[in-house]
Amino acid sequence: MSDQDDSLSLVLFSGTDDKLNAAAILAVGAAAMGRPVHVFLQYWACDAFRADRIEKDHGVSPEAGPEGAAAMARMQERGQLHWSETLRQAKEIGQVDVQACSLSMDLFEITKDDMDPMVDGVEGIAAFMASATGQIVFV
Amino acid sequence: MSDQDDSLSLVLFSGTDDKLNAAAILAVGAAAMGRPVHVFLQYWACDAFRADRIEKDHGVSPEAGPEGAAAMARMQERGQLHWSETLRQAKEIGQVDVQACSLSMDLFEITKDDMDPMVDGVEGIAAFMASATGQIVFV
Amino acid sequence: MSDQDDSLSLVLFSGTDDKLNAAAILAVGAAAMGRPVHVFLQYWACDAFRADRIEKDHGVSPEAGPEGAAAMARMQERGQLHWSETLRQAKEIGQVDVQACSLSMDLFEITKDDMDPMVDGVEGIAAFMASATGQIVFV
Repeated sequence: MSDQDDSLSLVLFSGTDDKLNAAAILAVGAAAMGRPVHVFLQYWACDAFRADRIEKDHGVSPEAGPEGAAAMARMQERGQLHWSETLRQAKEIGQVDVQACSLSMDLFEITKDDMDPMVDGVEGIAAFMASATGQIVFV
Repeated sequence: MSDQDDSLSLVLFSGTDDKLNAAAILAVGAAAMGRPVHVFLQYWACDAFRADRIEKDHGVSPEAGPEGAAAMARMQERGQLHWSETLRQAKEIGQVDVQACSLSMDLFEITKDDMDPMVDGVEGIAAFMASATGQIVFV
Repeated sequence: MSDQDDSLSLVLFSGTDDKLNAAAILAVGAAAMGRPVHVFLQYWACDAFRADRIEKDHGVSPEAGPEGAAAMARMQERGQLHWSETLRQAKEIGQVDVQACSLSMDLFEITKDDMDPMVDGVEGIAAFMASATGQIVFV
């Protein structure tokens, strides 16, 4: 694999805490191995990265059920990192770029200033596709 | 990357308008860059491509909530293309092949004639796997 | 593609029968073509592979609706293989490794002994990322 194809592109679509946590773990795992990571925020994930709500409760997938939601709450009480913190760590240890999808920004009528500082910029699908030369994962 | 590995294979599983729109945008982005795109329709996405319901409201992911659903409705009123139209454009500008999964067709007891003309054929998982030599994205 | 890059890594996140069935079909398709398959069980998929509940009803995606759920029940009555059986067949015909995510095991407070015998072991995200050198699909 060339350096370029070594990259991991994560298209974050879902905005629930379980999926965002799974995605953040993939990102930190790849970053720890020295792989470039591109994160592209679409739809509900884009909404979840707004500065005023990133730390709030974003719910879990409906399939979690009460038992699953309770297990997740238990993990948080025990001090499990929030997914946003896991992603910040990934950015510290590796090369992780977070871009919000311009179409999704239009959908929610928000701008880069509304986003958490972790978001590096706003880009369109063409720019994303040009950078997504390695593996792509849609979460 | 060789020409063959340049391909993008989209396994469409979900049948909600938000995910189908996200997938259509990935498809048109890849097609615009001259990349071959294979679309494989499983389960609820297969159902959503039926000729008699492709233009209808397919709902959004439960996590969208009322605020998200309202944002999507607003975009449509402003003239955002329907995902089926975005995919048709992708087929016009590039090499985009849409195949319905034969197992899913059995599940819904439908045939190729029940599908939107955009669907090029019906194939099994072996044929799909043989063509999916580049990136695979499951939506 | 080298032998190594020929691998398919399936990150199973969802625990509903429709998604698990779609994933099992991708796995058996890849295994039949002689491709190595790595399955990594996170969250609700990890829960669904517990020995005491793998054969039970895990529900379907909310979007299925009553019509979709009825179609799935009809397929089962007609003798469609359960996804767990499809995966077991994939393991028989090819090189399919199933690992549970250690973080998810902690979440549910379970150990390898609680899992179906099909699960080969428990591993962390670093081990998974090191093995996921080919295509990655998140289901």
